[in-house]
Parts: sequence; C-alpha cells; structure tokens
Amino acid sequence: MMNEDGKNRNGEAVTDGGSGSEPETALATARRQLERAASHADVDDGVVARLKHPTRVQQVSVPLRRDDGSLDVFTGFRAQHDDVRGPYKGGLRYHPEVTADECIGLSMWMTWKCAVMDLPFGGGKGGVAVDPKTLSDEERERLTRRFAEEIRNVVGPKKDVPAPDMGTGPQEMAWFMDAYSMQQGETTPGVVTGKPPVIGGSYGREEAPGRSVAIVTREAVDFYDWDIEDTTVAVQGFGSVGANAARLLDEWGAKVVAVSDVDGAIYDPDGLDTQDVEGHDERPGMVSGYDAPESLSNEELLELDVDVLIPAP
Amino acid sequence: MMNEDGKNRNGEAVTDGGSGSEPETALATARRQLERAASHADVDDGVVARLKHPTRVQQVSVPLRRDDGSLDVFTGFRAQHDDVRGPYKGGLRYHPEVTADECIGLSMWMTWKCAVMDLPFGGGKGGVAVDPKTLSDEERERLTRRFAEEIRNVVGPKKDVPAPDMGTGPQEMAWFMDAYSMQQGETTPGVVTGKPPVIGGSYGREEAPGRSVAIVTREAVDFYDWDIEDTTVAVQGFGSVGANAARLLDEWGAKVVAVSDVDGAIYDPDGLDTQDVEGHDERPGMVSGYDAPESLSNEELLELDVDVLIPAP
Amino acid sequence: MMNEDGKNRNGEAVTDGGSGSEPETALATARRQLERAASHADVDDGVVARLKHPTRVQQVSVPLRRDDGSLDVFTGFRAQHDDVRGPYKGGLRYHPEVTADECIGLSMWMTWKCAVMDLPFGGGKGGVAVDPKTLSDEERERLTRRFAEEIRNVVGPKKDVPAPDMGTGPQEMAWFMDAYSMQQGETTPGVVTGKPPVIGGSYGREEAPGRSVAIVTREAVDFYDWDIEDTTVAVQGFGSVGANAARLLDEWGAKVVAVSDVDGAIYDPDGLDTQDVEGHDERPGMVSGYDAPESLSNEELLELDVDVLIPAP
Amino acid sequence: MMNEDGKNRNGEAVTDGGSGSEPETALATARRQLERAASHADVDDGVVARLKHPTRVQQVSVPLRRDDGSLDVFTGFRAQHDDVRGPYKGGLRYHPEVTADECIGLSMWMTWKCAVMDLPFGGGKGGVAVDPKTLSDEERERLTRRFAEEIRNVVGPKKDVPAPDMGTGPQEMAWFMDAYSMQQGETTPGVVTGKPPVIGGSYGREEAPGRSVAIVTREAVDFYDWDIEDTTVAVQGFGSVGANAARLLDEWGAKVVAVSDVDGAIYDPDGLDTQDVEGHDERPGMVSGYDAPESLSNEELLELDVDVLIPAP
Amino acid sequence: MMNEDGKNRNGEAVTDGGSGSEPETALATARRQLERAASHADVDDGVVARLKHPTRVQQVSVPLRRDDGSLDVFTGFRAQHDDVRGPYKGGLRYHPEVTADECIGLSMWMTWKCAVMDLPFGGGKGGVAVDPKTLSDEERERLTRRFAEEIRNVVGPKKDVPAPDMGTGPQEMAWFMDAYSMQQGETTPGVVTGKPPVIGGSYGREEAPGRSVAIVTREAVDFYDWDIEDTTVAVQGFGSVGANAARLLDEWGAKVVAVSDVDGAIYDPDGLDTQDVEGHDERPGMVSGYDAPESLSNEELLELDVDVLIPAP
Amino acid sequence: MMNEDGKNRNGEAVTDGGSGSEPETALATARRQLERAASHADVDDGVVARLKHPTRVQQVSVPLRRDDGSLDVFTGFRAQHDDVRGPYKGGLRYHPEVTADECIGLSMWMTWKCAVMDLPFGGGKGGVAVDPKTLSDEERERLTRRFAEEIRNVVGPKKDVPAPDMGTGPQEMAWFMDAYSMQQGETTPGVVTGKPPVIGGSYGREEAPGRSVAIVTREAVDFYDWDIEDTTVAVQGFGSVGANAARLLDEWGAKVVAVSDVDGAIYDPDGLDTQDVEGHDERPGMVSGYDAPESLSNEELLELDVDVLIPAP
Repeated sequence: MMNEDGKNRNGEAVTDGGSGSEPETALATARRQLERAASHADVDDGVVARLKHPTRVQQVSVPLRRDDGSLDVFTGFRAQHDDVRGPYKGGLRYHPEVTADECIGLSMWMTWKCAVMDLPFGGGKGGVAVDPKTLSDEERERLTRRFAEEIRNVVGPKKDVPAPDMGTGPQEMAWFMDAYSMQQGETTPGVVTGKPPVIGGSYGREEAPGRSVAIVTREAVDFYDWDIEDTTVAVQGFGSVGANAARLLDEWGAKVVAVSDVDGAIYDPDGLDTQDVEGHDERPGMVSGYDAPESLSNEELLELDVDVLIPAP
Repeated sequence: MMNEDGKNRNGEAVTDGGSGSEPETALATARRQLERAASHADVDDGVVARLKHPTRVQQVSVPLRRDDGSLDVFTGFRAQHDDVRGPYKGGLRYHPEVTADECIGLSMWMTWKCAVMDLPFGGGKGGVAVDPKTLSDEERERLTRRFAEEIRNVVGPKKDVPAPDMGTGPQEMAWFMDAYSMQQGETTPGVVTGKPPVIGGSYGREEAPGRSVAIVTREAVDFYDWDIEDTTVAVQGFGSVGANAARLLDEWGAKVVAVSDVDGAIYDPDGLDTQDVEGHDERPGMVSGYDAPESLSNEELLELDVDVLIPAP
Repeated sequence: MMNEDGKNRNGEAVTDGGSGSEPETALATARRQLERAASHADVDDGVVARLKHPTRVQQVSVPLRRDDGSLDVFTGFRAQHDDVRGPYKGGLRYHPEVTADECIGLSMWMTWKCAVMDLPFGGGKGGVAVDPKTLSDEERERLTRRFAEEIRNVVGPKKDVPAPDMGTGPQEMAWFMDAYSMQQGETTPGVVTGKPPVIGGSYGREEAPGRSVAIVTREAVDFYDWDIEDTTVAVQGFGSVGANAARLLDEWGAKVVAVSDVDGAIYDPDGLDTQDVEGHDERPGMVSGYDAPESLSNEELLELDVDVLIPAP
Repeated sequence: MMNEDGKNRNGEAVTDGGSGSEPETALATARRQLERAASHADVDDGVVARLKHPTRVQQVSVPLRRDDGSLDVFTGFRAQHDDVRGPYKGGLRYHPEVTADECIGLSMWMTWKCAVMDLPFGGGKGGVAVDPKTLSDEERERLTRRFAEEIRNVVGPKKDVPAPDMGTGPQEMAWFMDAYSMQQGETTPGVVTGKPPVIGGSYGREEAPGRSVAIVTREAVDFYDWDIEDTTVAVQGFGSVGANAARLLDEWGAKVVAVSDVDGAIYDPDGLDTQDVEGHDERPGMVSGYDAPESLSNEELLELDVDVLIPAP
Repeated sequence: MMNEDGKNRNGEAVTDGGSGSEPETALATARRQLERAASHADVDDGVVARLKHPTRVQQVSVPLRRDDGSLDVFTGFRAQHDDVRGPYKGGLRYHPEVTADECIGLSMWMTWKCAVMDLPFGGGKGGVAVDPKTLSDEERERLTRRFAEEIRNVVGPKKDVPAPDMGTGPQEMAWFMDAYSMQQGETTPGVVTGKPPVIGGSYGREEAPGRSVAIVTREAVDFYDWDIEDTTVAVQGFGSVGANAARLLDEWGAKVVAVSDVDGAIYDPDGLDTQDVEGHDERPGMVSGYDAPESLSNEELLELDVDVLIPAP
Repeated sequence: MMNEDGKNRNGEAVTDGGSGSEPETALATARRQLERAASHADVDDGVVARLKHPTRVQQVSVPLRRDDGSLDVFTGFRAQHDDVRGPYKGGLRYHPEVTADECIGLSMWMTWKCAVMDLPFGGGKGGVAVDPKTLSDEERERLTRRFAEEIRNVVGPKKDVPAPDMGTGPQEMAWFMDAYSMQQGETTPGVVTGKPPVIGGSYGREEAPGRSVAIVTREAVDFYDWDIEDTTVAVQGFGSVGANAARLLDEWGAKVVAVSDVDGAIYDPDGLDTQDVEGHDERPGMVSGYDAPESLSNEELLELDVDVLIPAP
C-alpha cells in the first residue's frame, strides 16, 4: 500500500518498472509515467517537455553542531515541480537516501495528486539526507531550524508549503515554523501544514490516512451493493492507519473479525470490539496479546475468508 | 595558462590530479586542494568540513521557445559557496557540460581567489547546460532573460553578483541585468559585472587579463633587478591577453621580439612595433602575415633565447 | 439596460445628459451626478471636492510586437477613485475609445456601486485603447501580459483588484494573474476576479447578471403580491443575461411566453421550455429558428401583453 | 536662452514650431524633433515608435486644506519617459498650466539631455497644476508633502529622482525628501537632488548654470584661438546665471565691459569689477544703480561691439 | 468587576496585593501571580524566567501641534509580552498614568487571557500618557495618527493587533487604521480590532461584555439546576454591560426585578420590562426616573433577596 | 577627559551638575544643557520641546542560555533621539547600569556631536544591562546575536548604525553584523561601524582618538604661533589614546618629555623616543619600567613645566 507521500511502509520510493539490478529512480519512473499518460491525451509536446523538469531545486548545506561539539554538514533539498495551479505543496523527509532526483520525482507526483483532487496547489518535495535515528532531540531541533533558515527564501504560505513526511512529524513542523517566523519577524503558521494543533495545526490530520481507507472501503461496499452490516473485514497491521480504518468501519456497522500486529493476529468470527483493542502505536504488543476468542498467525489472517482485507502493515 | 574563470583556453575545467580514465570533477579537485591546504594550517575541523560544501546550489529549468516554434528545456545552476567575506561573486557559463558539481567546485575556487586578493566577496558560479553555438541571437536572449528570472531570488547587488564566463559576454550580462531590473521594478546595474560600459559597465575590463600579465611580468623584472629596457619578451598567442600584455610591456620599454598566432610566429631581434601588429581578435591571420624581419614556427618561438616567455595561447 | 460595467450592450459609456453634438464624457456625467446627489445630502464641501477627483490615474505605454514583427505602442490606463472603504475594484476594458477621463468617470461609479451594496471596496477602472478584434490570440496575450507588468505597482489583492470588462474576459484575467504572479515570485490569485475557475475563479460568475435580473424580477413580483405561477414574462434578447434570467424564472414557476434574438422572436402563450431553446451565445440563430407555436417580429414582442418585460438586447 | 528645464525665462515651454494660433504642445514638439532626428539616423522603427511614448505617467489628486479651512484639490503628474539608461531624472514644477502632455514632452527632452551627456539616467518630469504664488508657505509645505506621499510609489533613489524646476526650489525638495523618508521609515536623501546642502544637497548647484555658460564661453574662445585676456564680454541680465558667468569669466581674465538688469546697463571699456556689482538676486536695482563710468540703455548693450554677448535675461 | 482590559470601572489597574502606601505596579502583580502559578505547575525555570519579561517594549515620543499652535510632546508605549501562540493582541489606552511597566504588566495578562481561551494570539498592550479629556477632537485625531505612524514598525495584522481600551474607542481605531494604511500604501483593516463596522469592524463588539455576563449567568443557573423562568435577578448599574446582560436574561426568561443607576434603583417583583427602560448610556437619568412599581435606594438593591445579583456599576 | 562615548575613563556617565547625594541622570543633564543652550539661541519652543524627547526607545528582553544550561534574561535598549539630519548613529554598551534614561541622554549628546561636526547622522545609543566580565566568550556571542535579532527592526544602514562602546568592541560588532545579515539574507556590512577591517571595518579607527588629540594639540600650537619643534609635551597615561597622541606629536617634531602609566612616569628633558616605549595596552608595566633618564611620580608629571599637558588616564 502506498501512503500519501508515495512510499510504501518501508519508506522505499515505489516504482512500477525496474526489474533489473539497479532500481529505477523516482524521477525516471515519474517521467516514464508522464510520457505514457501523455501518449493517451492530446497535449502539446512543449507542455510535456516542460513537465518533465522541475521549476527549481534548491540544494543547501546544513551544518550541525553535534552534542559532542563536532560539526557535521548534511545536504538538504527542496524540489518545486510546477506552480501553475497554486503554491508548491509537499513533504520534507529525513532519510539517508534523500537525493535531488528523488525529490524531483516525488514532487512530480505531488503535482498530479493535487491536480487529480482539484486542489489549488502544485507539487513540491524536499528533505535532508540524514538518518534521524542517529540524532538526539536537540540535534534534530538544531538541524531542522537551520534547514528552515537555509530554504526560507523559496518557501512561504503563498510560495511553497512543506508538510511532514518520512522521518519528520508535527514536532519538526513546529520547529520549522518557529525558525521561519523568527526570520520573517512575524508569526507565520501558514508556512507549513502538519504542525501541532496548539500552534495552529488542523485537528484530524493524524487519523486522516486511516479514515481515507475506511471511506474508500465503504464506497466499494456500496459499489458492489453489499450491506455493510454483513461485511466481514480483516486488517493486517493495527498501527495508526489500520486501527483508525478498523474502528471507523466497526462504527459504521462492518464486522471486523481479525486484526494483527508484528507478533500475530487475533480473531473473533462475531466481530472484535475494535475500540477495546489498543493499537500498536498506543501500546506495542497489546494487539496479539489481546484476550480474543482465537489467535492466528499473520499468514493465516491473510488467508481468512473475509469480504474485505485491508493490508496496512 | 588558466584565466580568471578557472579554465584553460579550450574551456576545459582544469584539474591537477586525474591521470586515470575518468577525469576528476572540479568539485573533487577543489576539495582535495582544500584538504591539502588545511593540513598545512591550524584550522578548526568544523571550518574545513563546512568549506567542503556550498551554502546553496539552485538548479532551475529554463524553457526556451525555439525559433521554429518548438520548446526545449535546459537546466541552469547557481552555486554559492561561502559569503562570510561578502556577497557571492563569479561567472555564468553556457556550455553543454555544465553540472551542479562543476559549479560547486568552481565556486569554491572563487572563494579562495577573492580571499587571496582581500576582495570583500565570496565564491559563486553558475551556468546553463547548453551549447551557445546552437542558439540564434534571439534564442540566446530569450534563454538568458528566462534564466535571470528563474534565479533572481538568489542574486542581487548585495547577495550574488554574476559575471561573464565561458560562452557568455557583455551582451548576456546586459540581457540579464535588464530582465532582473524589470522584475525588481528599478534599474539595478549592480546585479552583474562585465556588462557593456554604456549601461554602467567598467571601462578596461576586457584589457584587464593582459594588463595583469604585463604587471606581473614587470614586478618579476623588478624582483630580479633587471632593467626593463634590456628585457626581451616572446609572446605565444596574440589574442586579447597576449596582445594587451605585449603592447603594455612594449610601452614600458621592454623589447618584444616575437609574437605568434595559430599560423606561426614573427620575429624581430630589435623589437617589434606591437601597436602596428593587429591582434588575432582584431583581424585573424594578420599576426603571422605581418611583414616582420623573420618568420618562425610556433615551436621555434617557444625555444627562443629570451628573458621572458609569455604563453597566452 | 446598463450592465455592471456602466455600459450598454453596444459598449458605449452611458450618460444621462448630452443632447448636444458633443457627447458628455463619463467623467462629466459622474461629476454632475455627484453634485446633484450632494445637494440633497448634508455633506462637507471638502468631501465633495475630493470625490470629484480620482486618487490616482496611472497611464502606461504598452509596446506590442505584432505577429508580423512590427512594433505598435498602445496606451493603457488604471484610474483609482477612492479607497476609503477598501481596495479599489473595477474592470479592465479593451476598446479603441478608452481614455483617462472615461476610466475616471467609470471608477467613480464603481465607488458608488460598492458603497451602495456595502462591499468593502472602492472604485477603480482601467483599460487599453485598442480594438481587441484586430489582435490575434498571441497578440492579445502579449499585450495583456505587458500591460499587467506595467501597472503591477498599483494593483494587488489589498490594493486594486481588476476584473473583466468590455473586450476582456476570463482568459485575459488568467494572463494578467500569471504575469503578475511571475513578477511577484508567488502565485497570487487574489489580484483579479473573473478568472477561470480552474485557477481559482468563482463558479457562477458568468450567470450572475442574468441571475440578478431574475432575482430582482421575483422580488418585484412579491412586492406586488402577484403569484409567480401566474406571471407571464417576455424576454428581449436571449444571450447570457436574457437566457439565464428566463431559465431561472421558468424554473421558479413563471411563464416565459416569448424570447427573441436579432432575427426575430418566438411565442408560446402556454410558456416556452426555456431549457430547450439554445441561447444566442450557445448557438447563434437557434432562438428565432426554434420550433415554437408562433413567430413574432422583435417589435411585436415588445408590445406583448405580459406582466414582465425584460429588455436584455 | 533655454535653461536646463526646457523653459525660457518666462516659464513658457519652448517650442520651435507653432506659428499658428494654437501653440504646439511640448509633447508634439518633442515627437516632431524625434522624428526629424530619426530620419537622419539608422534606427529601428520600433525603437522610434517606443520613444514617442512615455513608459508611464502617474496622475494624482492632491487635496490641500487651505489656511482658511476650506479644501482645494489640485492635480499632480509624474511622467517617466525611458529608463533604459538608468533611473528617471527630472524636475517637479508648480505652475497653473502643468498638464500630462507637457510633462511627457519635457520628460522626453530629459532623456535626450541625459543621453547626450552620457549620464546614467533616463528622462522624467512632473509637477502640480497650481500657481505657487497663491499659496502660503504652510500651504506649499502641505501641498508638497501630500504630493510626495501620492507619487512615492513611482519615485526613489534607484527609480526616479525629482529635482527643483519652475516654481519649486530647495525648500520643496527638503519637504519632499522628508515626507518620502517618513513613509519609507528611513532617511533617504537620494530621492531628490537640489535639496539644501545641510540635509545632503550638493554644494555649487545654484551656481552651476552660470558656471556652465562661462565654461562654454571659454571653450569657444579657445576654439577660435582667441586670447581670453583680450576678449570683451557683455552680459544681458545679472541674475544668478548672468552674474555667475560674468564673475567667472572676469576671474579667468576676460574683460566684462557691460552688464544690465531690467532698469538699464552699465559700461566700462576697461572692464567692470564684477565682484563689486551686486547681482539682481542679491539686491535688486543695484546693477543699473552701480557707479560705473557709463550708463547704457538695455538696447545699447545688445549692440555693443564686443567679442562675446551673453543673453541671460 | 474587572472588564476585559484588566481595569475596574474607575480605570485603575487592579492589583491583588498592595496594602501599603505605595500601590503595587501591574508588572509586579503580574510577576507575583506568575510565580505563584508556576509553583503549582511543572514548568521549566527558564520558561518562567522568560515569561517574567516582555519580548519588547517600544517607547515613542508623539509630538502634538495643539489647536493654539503650541507643541506638546507626549510619550507612547507598546509592550509585547509573548508571541509563541500567535501575534500580539491588546488594547491601546489614553490615560495620564500610562507607563512602560503598566503596559508590560497588562500585556502579560493578555497572554494568559488568550491562552486560557485558546485564542491564537499573544499578549500586547500600549497607550499614550495623556488625559484624552484635555484634547479637542482634532487633537485626538492628530495624536492618534502620529502615534500610529511612530509604532507602525511593530504592529500589523500578523505582528500585533491593537484594540480600543481605556480612553480610546472605535474612532481612535479608525484613525489608527487609516494612518497605518496610508503608510503601507494599501488598505489594511486587519491592523486593529474594535473599528467601526462601516470600515470593517465586527458587529456585536459593543454588546459583547454584557452578553458574556448573561451567558455566564445562564451557565451558572444550569449548573445549579435552577429553572431560568423562576430565577430572579437584580442588576446594579444599567450602562452598556448591565443593560445588555439584563435584557438578554429577560429575553431568555429570567425575571429581572431590579436595576439601578447612580441616582437610585427601580423594583418590580413581577419583573421589569427591560427593553422599555432606557439605559444610562442611552439617556442618563431615565433608569431611576422610570415609572416602576417601587423605588429603592442603591443600597437596598444590593440587599434584595434575589437569586442572582449582577454588579455592573 | 571625556571620550566620544560621553563617559570618563571609569565608565561613568559624566554630568556637570549633581552635587547632591543622588547623581543626576544622563537624560536630566542632557535636557538641562539643551535648555541652557536654547536660552542663548533663537529657537522655536516647539523644536526645543521636541528635542527633549527621543523619537523612539526600543526595550527588549534578551534570553541567554548560560554555559551551565540555565537561562538568564537580560534587558537591552536602543534609544534613537533625532534623525532629521540622517540615520541614527551611536554605540552599544554592555554595563550593569544601562537604563533607558541613560541611553536617551547619551543619544541626545550623539545628536549634538554629529551636528557640530556636520556629519549626516542623528543621535542613537543603546546597550544591554549586563556585566560583560561575567560572561564567557560563547555567552557574549549568544547574547550579542540574540540582541541583534531583537533590535533588527529598528537598525540598518539607512536607519540606525550602532558602534562599539563601553564593554563592547570589534568582536561584538562582527557578531552583530553577522546575525543581522543572516536575518536579512544578504551581507550587510553597513549596519555597524567599528567592525574588524577583515569584514569591512575601517582602518585607523583604533588610533583615531589619539590622533584627534594630537591634531587638536597641533592646531592649538599653531593658534598660539608657537613652533612645534620647540614645544614640550607631557602625557599622563600611555594607553591607546595617550600613546598614539604622543607618537604623532613626536613625529611632527614636538618634544615629548614625559609619559606615565599607573605605576609612575618617565622623563627625558631632550624628548623620549616614543616609538621605543611600549604602550600600556601593548605590554603593561613597560612604561614606568622603561630605561629613561629620569623617573617621576605621577604627581610630579602633572606639575612639570611643559607647554602642553595631555591628561589621558
């Protein structure tokens, strides 16, 4: 399953070609997709040529004073693909493999996503080539603030609005917004989305992916003219996405018969009380340890005879 | 001989390593030089780490409507290495091989050059990956204006001041300045150097490299306690650099006994009248065709028994 | 009938005096109206004196490279009457007779209109003295973009917000917005209204004038305590205004018995199916050619015994 | 004699055509001159077409609270002809006959003047249609400050730099600069020239016109290979221009034999002591009242047998 | 009762300590309260240290040309306590005793108030040390406009948004907004709240304090499970706060049995018709002069046996 | 002796009144001096009233993370007295006793000083109430950078240009300039004077006070028609001021017969070789320890029979 940032659960950029040894880059994939789509549509060649390139990529060096006093220099990027439909929009990721080409490819996908949903934004994407797990909290704060200062000339509420992405979250957005606001000399919440609600973030953002899965499921049930009350559901993975989807479908009447975490699955043919099962993010280990009528292996869950299987590993 | 833009006469980036098949990039060379220099000086490791990276590289797409109505998209760059000593400064080159890494390496050299001369500037360098010989004048103008618009947010009289470089000249600077000024809404001559004097450029810029060679020569003559009147000079190449150097030394009393162009050399043991010999840039073919006492091959010129040999091919 | 831009259907500025040979200018009319109104109200003389003049008129030259390579220079204007109640607001017209005085007069009317409706805007109006029918699409685009660049210093979302007017439409607003946004360096949809919905324009704008006519009619029917079901309506002209008004009234229950275009009228005492009649803008000639119970001359329509006559020629 | 602002001593715009009843406007004259000049040069038609129009004219209303409490509204202008060579430059005049067309015409002449002298400025000109003699000092200050506020968006040190002109002087420039600076929030002396030296104006500005006349005279004397010591000079008018010219030529050795004011002339065949004669501006009536060897009528002065006659009425 | 600006009805800053001769300043009180609150919470010492100081206080001189031509100079302040949660927000007061310390203390309270209500603003407060009763309307306008110009660099819709406070009202806000907008060159209603609705102010602002009292009362009645229809209310003071509260409670069903003004109280055990009693602000003297069943002294009103007593003197 | 910052050698603000117990503040002194001066001149009362107050004082809190991890908050100030003659100019001092009133008084003196020297600047002064000797180098850097960020909205090359003062020096100016430049996004050397020459500071600044003393001495010698070769000089104190003054006078021909440091004086009736005596700042203790013909006590130096006595303790 691909989440909104165009990556699977392991944080790898997803490509639909590339059977060879060297995986295709996100940029190559995005360009190949564009060409294929353009071949089906009546689009000016110049427009396609233009869309194969980003408007701008800003690469910056981000010096970080480590807690031990030494200085490391990381490289950050912000790719901006196209702003014809509105300001650039897209995540900032912290991952050792971040490159300019990856950011460009992902920013192209953001352009398509915004256009498909008719949102008045264009595609952007950025990040820092760093493994955030090797940083202390203080180092992550210093890195984020310095990165914000270095790219501040290309972002802004009407220019380019970053969001959390792989390796970043509300806390990074809060630091980013504060560093940007100090530079601007005025509080500017609109420079990022995904910040904590207490400083102006939107409620419901965290639950949104799971909610989307639940809504899509309900629409499919309607499409096939099934009765939601008679629909059985199994959910692989009970993190933020899986738990939110399961609980909403449960609330809407569906029978969630099985859920799992890394250690195994639980099963109740009459439907589990999904509110009672603590999610993996809430308390690790509580899913498979839940007192359910039956236990299953993770493989068995995937082979259950259910109407809907939600893979959210 | 390396000119101010860190390239030899053939426009190749000069490196001092790289005997293998794959030539070392300008960036790799610049970093290697930095490390070697740092090992001789007492510099903080953090400072060296920081100086191995540019502050910022902005990569942009430059769409160009060709004269035949088709649209090509070129990639442009502006690397900014370090501005601790003042605004960034460095050329913009048009060459098919321009890359981000080349611009970064060249911008590092610009930092060192400005620092060595105690000029209040830091190092920058940029360009577009395009072969300017394939562009009509109108295409070069449109490309330059669009490139200026795309990088205008990172340049400016107090931020970063481009200059002509390989493949660009006063005309490109004039277009660049005009496009930038229109965007700013006010005439801004300070955004580039190397523009034509009629719109605010400095007189003497074109003669400057030859003048520098002449001055260095004079200083060397003084250093060795020679008498300039008795000094004999041979000049390989009689283009802008060679001709200006030869004429100044002639004016200061030196005896310029031989000069050459690609077709051969001329020789007069009593000194040539350098003002009378038309330079290669002024009228190609007139050097070797000049009515001088003797003709030499280019190889013979290099082996003349003179006090000073100026290689300016 | 006068539309929102203070012109009749022929695009002539409407004045309510002027029986002599030389028609009164829009400015003279607007001032005369102001004085007459002021004589009925208790207003400070200084305020009246101030309101007789615009705050500012910016006149610009707009060079246009014609498709044949020649260069024409057109004159453009933007008059801004009064911004005490909010940013200036008003159309941009392309018409050969556009003058500074006409723009000033029309901008004064925009001030009154906004104030009467209690909208937080002041009055503006502008345009270019050019016959748009003599321009190719490419020329209109170049002219509009250059005009936008020339007046960009006096417009903006919080300063002055142009709109389509005589000779301009959504396409011109799209070009204007894009040229302005490129100069600002950020997407600025708020600089114009009347742009296409796909780049942020409002839905329903095109239907708004006809909808207003229908609403006013309904209010009048209510005022006279008539029953809308028993009300008969004749509509002169079936363009955007007439057709939208007729269809809405039809939808609300009124009996639209006759509509016309330049070639004649159609009549059905039981009410026409207004959705079925194609409007003049949709397919010219289809109104009078519609298969209706009766045909009328345009004069006969005006003399029909109906409750409501809507003149929308 | 025409002074730098393109007007003769009576403040009338000077035209070189116009024998009919209706005098030719400054704009018509300037355009006619341009066409005549262009016919002698190889200039692109598009360039000529462009130069016949100003880039921009900003017209503003300037409300003035009179000392008696009433409110008058005056109209002000700023015409900007061409800024290809640098920021606009030109005077601000207070005169009842100021019009947009006059300002445009005068601004065109400023473009030519700056270009001829190779100054990095383009042509501008502006003013207010008001008779400054009808204003109290306080009213002139309020008018000037408000005018500055109304045109501040089109002027500035790098945009357009006003100067004193007919009906304005250093005091108006001081008010203008102060009003502009308060709006900008920082002291900006560069927004006007011709301000008093105490706030940053240049010394020698007032004497400049007379100095120019003297220098031109000296050059002419050299051109004809005369000896300045033997050159006799008569000066019609002994105001700022005439007195400064006379005194400088006297200082350089010429024999100034006659000077005049409105009441008559004085004559000394051996040369007058020009430092001793008080100028008309310094003490009116002291020229013709000076104790000189001979008195002449103004007509007689013009017919004196001298080498140089300087008409500076 | 303390109103929203932290002052009692006599306009004295309210403190909760200070039994000695010298009253405690608002700043000292606010700091003491902060320390007490911090002792009950788990807050970092550094945060408390930081919150004891304002981010910034700007003190300005405000020269005022008096109506008699003389010049007085008043001192104005704007204290900004903390903007972590959003732009600064708080009133501007005109009172002879305004000091920097008072503004700081009051701005701290504004921080707490905004945080408690979860409003995205931080605390600000300012004012001018002047007795507004000694100023003519024209002087108040000139003073307000000049004050706005002097503090414009620290206020703005996203920086700091003033509001009316002791000694100021909608008119002052209108002048402030206009002066600020003229400086900015664009209409900026968002720079102040509390301006008149005609220029963008919110409806209902004046009634808000009384409405709040009524709402709190209703919530209390609900809390005690009383029936609002059986609840008796006495209101001390029938100005803006008291009258609005009484009329709303009356409308919601409560029985308002007594109201008063400075001259005495009126009483009706069956409930007064509060809409019929003109408020003290509407027509002074009409409360105690109202034709009610009974008259009471002000003391008697306070001792009435009612369910709710609203002290709004 | 008072140096340019209006303080004597002990860093106390100098007042010329104050015999009572409570010393007069700098502000009170400056106002008293202004009144006394105004009583001798024909100045408008309004101007005097205005000059008794600063245009603006910005007070800020400067949080400092101490090296031990704790947080202290210091108070900083910037007073700006009058900018009619140009941008504000004046020092930033670090001293525990810095107050708003002291800064105001000192800024008034800066206005007078600039005006007396006809420099195009107005008076400013600021600082932080902190004892710099209690700060580590890192703490001083963090404090200075944060202070710069907090007052950046009121300083700038054309607004207000700080300089070193008591407790600050070139290093603080370098930090200040760098912090300001980072906020502005471009290198801005003009925001401070007194920075190290390597980043754009002026050469000769340190020697300037001593040079001034020498020049004033030479002028006095000329005034009295003495011969500089015959003039004897004694210098009390041989720090930066005394040593530079002594060496220049020596160079110009005067006979410097005695110099001193805290430990005593040295004397040579034939004139000391002032270049040979190391200054107190260069090597403490070397003055009185110098091998001179005679030693004197400090008191004896002050009583020497010399033409010029320079007190520079």
